[in-house]
Amino acid sequence: MAKVGILMGSKSDFEVVKPAVAVLKKFGVETEVRVISAHRTPDEAHDFAASAKQNGMEAIICAAGKAAHLGGVIAAMTTLPVIGLPVKTDMMGGLDSLLSIVQMPAGIPVACVGVNGGENAGLLALQILAIKYPEIDQKLCEYKQAMKEKINADDKALQELL
Amino acid sequence: MAKVGILMGSKSDFEVVKPAVAVLKKFGVETEVRVISAHRTPDEAHDFAASAKQNGMEAIICAAGKAAHLGGVIAAMTTLPVIGLPVKTDMMGGLDSLLSIVQMPAGIPVACVGVNGGENAGLLALQILAIKYPEIDQKLCEYKQAMKEKINADDKALQELL
Amino acid sequence: MAKVGILMGSKSDFEVVKPAVAVLKKFGVETEVRVISAHRTPDEAHDFAASAKQNGMEAIICAAGKAAHLGGVIAAMTTLPVIGLPVKTDMMGGLDSLLSIVQMPAGIPVACVGVNGGENAGLLALQILAIKYPEIDQKLCEYKQAMKEKINADDKALQELL
Amino acid sequence: MAKVGILMGSKSDFEVVKPAVAVLKKFGVETEVRVISAHRTPDEAHDFAASAKQNGMEAIICAAGKAAHLGGVIAAMTTLPVIGLPVKTDMMGGLDSLLSIVQMPAGIPVACVGVNGGENAGLLALQILAIKYPEIDQKLCEYKQAMKEKINADDKALQELL
Amino acid sequence: MAKVGILMGSKSDFEVVKPAVAVLKKFGVETEVRVISAHRTPDEAHDFAASAKQNGMEAIICAAGKAAHLGGVIAAMTTLPVIGLPVKTDMMGGLDSLLSIVQMPAGIPVACVGVNGGENAGLLALQILAIKYPEIDQKLCEYKQAMKEKINADDKALQELL
Amino acid sequence: MAKVGILMGSKSDFEVVKPAVAVLKKFGVETEVRVISAHRTPDEAHDFAASAKQNGMEAIICAAGKAAHLGGVIAAMTTLPVIGLPVKTDMMGGLDSLLSIVQMPAGIPVACVGVNGGENAGLLALQILAIKYPEIDQKLCEYKQAMKEKINADDKALQELL
Amino acid sequence: MAKVGILMGSKSDFEVVKPAVAVLKKFGVETEVRVISAHRTPDEAHDFAASAKQNGMEAIICAAGKAAHLGGVIAAMTTLPVIGLPVKTDMMGGLDSLLSIVQMPAGIPVACVGVNGGENAGLLALQILAIKYPEIDQKLCEYKQAMKEKINADDKALQELL
Amino acid sequence: MAKVGILMGSKSDFEVVKPAVAVLKKFGVETEVRVISAHRTPDEAHDFAASAKQNGMEAIICAAGKAAHLGGVIAAMTTLPVIGLPVKTDMMGGLDSLLSIVQMPAGIPVACVGVNGGENAGLLALQILAIKYPEIDQKLCEYKQAMKEKINADDKALQELL
Repeated sequence: MAKVGILMGSKSDFEVVKPAVAVLKKFGVETEVRVISAHRTPDEAHDFAASAKQNGMEAIICAAGKAAHLGGVIAAMTTLPVIGLPVKTDMMGGLDSLLSIVQMPAGIPVACVGVNGGENAGLLALQILAIKYPEIDQKLCEYKQAMKEKINADDKALQELL
Repeated sequence: MAKVGILMGSKSDFEVVKPAVAVLKKFGVETEVRVISAHRTPDEAHDFAASAKQNGMEAIICAAGKAAHLGGVIAAMTTLPVIGLPVKTDMMGGLDSLLSIVQMPAGIPVACVGVNGGENAGLLALQILAIKYPEIDQKLCEYKQAMKEKINADDKALQELL
Repeated sequence: MAKVGILMGSKSDFEVVKPAVAVLKKFGVETEVRVISAHRTPDEAHDFAASAKQNGMEAIICAAGKAAHLGGVIAAMTTLPVIGLPVKTDMMGGLDSLLSIVQMPAGIPVACVGVNGGENAGLLALQILAIKYPEIDQKLCEYKQAMKEKINADDKALQELL
Repeated sequence: MAKVGILMGSKSDFEVVKPAVAVLKKFGVETEVRVISAHRTPDEAHDFAASAKQNGMEAIICAAGKAAHLGGVIAAMTTLPVIGLPVKTDMMGGLDSLLSIVQMPAGIPVACVGVNGGENAGLLALQILAIKYPEIDQKLCEYKQAMKEKINADDKALQELL
Repeated sequence: MAKVGILMGSKSDFEVVKPAVAVLKKFGVETEVRVISAHRTPDEAHDFAASAKQNGMEAIICAAGKAAHLGGVIAAMTTLPVIGLPVKTDMMGGLDSLLSIVQMPAGIPVACVGVNGGENAGLLALQILAIKYPEIDQKLCEYKQAMKEKINADDKALQELL
Repeated sequence: MAKVGILMGSKSDFEVVKPAVAVLKKFGVETEVRVISAHRTPDEAHDFAASAKQNGMEAIICAAGKAAHLGGVIAAMTTLPVIGLPVKTDMMGGLDSLLSIVQMPAGIPVACVGVNGGENAGLLALQILAIKYPEIDQKLCEYKQAMKEKINADDKALQELL
Repeated sequence: MAKVGILMGSKSDFEVVKPAVAVLKKFGVETEVRVISAHRTPDEAHDFAASAKQNGMEAIICAAGKAAHLGGVIAAMTTLPVIGLPVKTDMMGGLDSLLSIVQMPAGIPVACVGVNGGENAGLLALQILAIKYPEIDQKLCEYKQAMKEKINADDKALQELL
Repeated sequence: MAKVGILMGSKSDFEVVKPAVAVLKKFGVETEVRVISAHRTPDEAHDFAASAKQNGMEAIICAAGKAAHLGGVIAAMTTLPVIGLPVKTDMMGGLDSLLSIVQMPAGIPVACVGVNGGENAGLLALQILAIKYPEIDQKLCEYKQAMKEKINADDKALQELL
C-alpha cells in the first residue's frame, strides 16, 4: 500500500494541510501526518527525512509559511520527491513562503504547488504514486472526469439562473 | 525503460531546458524533447498530452516564460505528473512565469521548480521515476553523494586559498 | 445583432463577471455566459473557441484568477478579440491573475483590463463592437456623457456638503 | 480602408512601437504614427483623440512607460478602442508602466497588452478591425496558420539537432 | 490669502482627502475641493488646471487610486506645484496608485506623498506656501513643536503604564 | 536670490543629482550641493537642516538609495519643503529607495519624485520657488513651451522618417 | 545586570513591541521602553542613542513602520548592535517597513528581524547578550529545549486527533 | 580572542562574503570561513552549528541566495547570534534571498542585513562582539569616525569640483 508523509511546520498550518490529507485518504493512500519544524525540531526533521524511505514513504508533502525552509531541509536528507506547500502569510499574500520554497538551488529540487494549495499538494502526490500504482492512476482519471462533470453542471446551473 | 517528455513553448527556451535533458540522459532515461506552444500550436499540445501516457511517458517537463500556460494546458489533458519550469523574463526576474505556473486552481496541480531551474526540473522527474525504478533511485543517491563531495572539496579548496 | 461570449473559469467568478453582463445587456448586446475552465474542461474550452466565430460571437471576455490561463487558451483557438478579466486573489491583490493574462507571447494577444474590472471588460467589448455597429457607438457616446454628468453632480453635491 | 492611430509618449519608445507598425502595414492597414505626450503635449493629445473618429481611425495604440498616462488620457476623449502598450522600464521590468495602463477606473477601459508587446498591440488592433473587415480576418487566420507552421518547423529542427 | 486646490478622482476618495482639507483649514488657508476625474471629466480637469493660477491657487493636491493619472494630467496644464496623493487599493496596498503618480517622465514632476497620506499632502502644501507666507511658516513651527510634545507625552504615558 | 540645498547620501549619487543642479543653475537659482549622509554624518545632517532656513534656503533636495533615510532625517529638522529623490538600486529597480522616501509618517511629509528623477527634483523645487518668485514662474512657462515644441519637432521628424 | 533599549516610533506600535518586552523580562533583562520618533522627536532619538552606552544598554530594539528610519537613525549615533523590527503596514504586508530597515548602506548595519517579529527581536537581543552573560546563554538553551518539547507535544496531540 | 564563523552556501558566494572577512580581519578577529550548504551538505551544517559554541565562536555569518535556508538551518542548532547575508539574485534583485532569511518563525531569529551587504554583516558581528570585548568597541568608534571623515572629505572634494 502506498504511503505519503505530510509535514507541517506548525500546528497552525493544519487547516491548509487538511485537504491534502483528505484527498489522499479518499484515494486509499496511507498518510503519516506530523508537526515537525525545520527550525524548532531540526533533529526530528532530520530523522524523519533520513528514514522516510525505509518507513515506506514514496513522497513527502511539506507545508510551511514565511521563511519556509521545511521542504528544503527534508529534501536535503532524502531522494524521495518532496512537495512544497506554501502557507499564506501577510507578506504579499504568501510570496515569502512561495519564494522560500520554490527557489531551491541546483541539485535539491522541491516540487512547489500554489499558496494554500493543499488539495493540489495531495493530488500531485497521487500523480507521482500513479506512475507505479495503476489503481491510483485509474482513480485519478475518474477524479478528473468528476471535476469536468462538476464544472459542466455549474455551467448548466448558470444557464438556468440567467 | 523510463521516458520523460520535455516541452518548451519556444525554441528560445532551449538553453533553459538543456540541463534537464542532460541530467535525464546522464541517468539513462529516454527523453522526447519538443517545441510545442500552448498558444501557437494548441492542437499539438492537446495531442501530446492526451497520448503521453500511451506513448510511454511517466512525467512531463514544461518550460515556458511570461504568461506561461504550457504546464497548465498539458496538465489539463493528462494525469501524469507535470513539472513546470519557469523561464526568466524581464518582469521582476521571471515572477510572471513563476506565478503563471505555480498558482494553479484546485484539481490540476503543476509541480513548479525555481526560475531557470532546468537541472532541478530534470532531477525532480528522476525522483518521481525513482519510486518505481530502483536503479534510478540508486543513481540519485550517488548523485547526492557526489554533490556533497563537490561542496566539501570546494570547502577544502577555500581553506587553502585563505 | 451583436453577440459577446463571456466565460469564467469557475462559478465563484460570477460576481466579478456580473457587471460585464449587465452593461452588455443594457446596450442590447446578446451574451452567452458560460462556466468553462481551461484546466478542468479543456475540451469545452477548445470547442467554444473553435466555434465562436461560426456561432456569431464577435468578442469573448474571459474571467479567471490565479494562474489565469483561460484567456490565452481561448485566444489560441480563435482570431476573435479576447478580453482578459483578472480576478482578485490573495497573492498581492491579483497580481498573479494579471500577469498570467497580460504577459502573452508574441502572436496571441489578450486584451487585459484591470483586476476585477468587470464593467470595463464589458465596455471594451462594446467599444470593439462599436466600430461595426453605429448604434452601439451612439450609445457609448451617451454613456460617456452620463458618466461625465454623474461626476459633475458628485462635484456639485460635495460643494454643498462642504 | 481601415486605419489605426499609433501614439508614443516619447520618440525613445519607437523601437517598442515598430513591430506594431510593421504588422499593421503587412496587413495593409493604414497607420498614423505620432509622437504625442500626455504630459508634454496635452493639447495635441486632446485634439488627436477628439478627432480620431472623424479622421477615420478605428483603434488607437498608445505606447508609454513609467507613469504611463497616455492610454488613459486618449481613452478619456474618445469611445474608440484604445490599446495600451507598456514600455519596459527599470522599475521591476515595467511594472510601473503596466499598472499605470491596466488599472483604469470603471467607465474608461484601456486594452492592455504585455510589456514591450508591440507585435501583440498591432495584432490586437487587427483582431478588432477583423470583426468589420473580412479580408483582415482572413489574413489573421493565415497568420495564425503560419505561426503554427513556424513552431512546427522549430520542433522539427530541434529533433534533427538532438 | 493663500489658496490650495484639492481634487479627487472620485467622491469615494473623500475620506482620504479629508485630513488634507482639515489641516489646511486649521492653518487658515482657503481650499477649493473638487471631484474632477482625469478620465471621466477630462475637460473639467483641463479647465481647472489651465485657470488655477489665475484663480489664485498656489498648489494643487490630486488624490486618485489605481491608474492614478489625475496628478499628471493636472501637472501637464500648469506650472503650479502639484501634490499627488495615492489612494490605497487592493493591488499590493496601493502600489498601482503610487507608481502611477510618482514615476512621472522628465519635465513634468508630481510631488508624491505616501499612500493614503492625506495629512501629509496638506502639510506639504503648507510647507510650500510657507516660503512665501511667514505666518504659515510660523504655524508650521508650532505644529512641529506640538507633534513633538505629543510624542513626548505618549512616551511619558507609556512609562506610567509599564 | 532664491537658493536650494541639494544633498546626496554618497558621492556615488552625484550622477543622479547632476540634472537637478543643472536645471536650477539654468534658471539662475543658487544651489548648495553637499555630500551629507544621514547615517555616516548625522551631525552634519542635523546642522544643515537646522540652519537651512537661516542660510537662505527655501527648498532642499535629498538624493539617496536603498534604506534612503536622508529626506526624512532632514525633514525632521526643518519646515522647509524637502524633495526626496530615490536613487536606482538592484532591489526591484529602486523600490527600496522609493518606499523608504515616500512612505513617511503623518506629520513629516517628503515630496517624492520618480526613481533617478533628477531633473524633476530640480523642476519641482523651481515650481515651489515660483509661487514666490514671478521670474522663475515666467521661465517655467517658457520651459514648458520649449518641451512642447521639442515633442512636436520629434513628431514632425518621425513623419519624415516613416 | 544586562539592559536593552526598546524604542517604537509611535505608541500604536506597542502591540508589536510587547512580545519583545515580555521575553526580555522573562529572562531577567532590564528594559527601557520608549516612544521616540526619528521624525517627530529627532533630538530625543539623537540623545537616546548618543548616551545609550553610558546608560548601560548593550543592545537597542527599534520598531517602526512604513518609511521606518528609526533603526538607521539610532545606529548612526551608536556602535551598539541595533535590532530593527519592521511593523506590518498595508503596503504589501510591510515590505515598505522591511526594506526601509534592512537595506542599510555599508558602514551602518541594522540587524533586521521579520515583519511583526517582536518575540524574535527580543530573542536576538538575548542571543547577543548571551555571548557575555553565561546565565542568559543557559536560559536560551532551556528556551530552545522548551520550544522543541512544545512542537513535539503538538505533534503528539495531532496524532491523537487524527 | 574573539572568533566568528562565516559560512556560504556555495563557493560562488565568496565575492559577497569577502568584505565581511576583510573587516573582521582588520579588527583582529579570528574567522573560520567555510563552504557549507544547508541542502547539499546538511550534516556538515548540523555539525558546524552544534559545535560552534564549543569551538569558540561567538557569532556566525551565513551568506546564501535564492531559497536561502542556511541561516535558519544554522540558527536551529545553536543559540549563538546568526547573521543572515542575502545574496543578490535575478528574482527582483534578491528579494527571494531576503525574504527566505528575514521572515523566520517565532523562536529562531536570524539577524538579517541588506542584500549583498557583506561589510555590514562583518560590522554587525563586530558590534555584537564589542559588548564583550572593549578593544573591539574602541575600534568601532574609530571606524565610525573614519567613515565620517571620509564623507566629509568627499563633501569637500565636491565643493572644489563644482
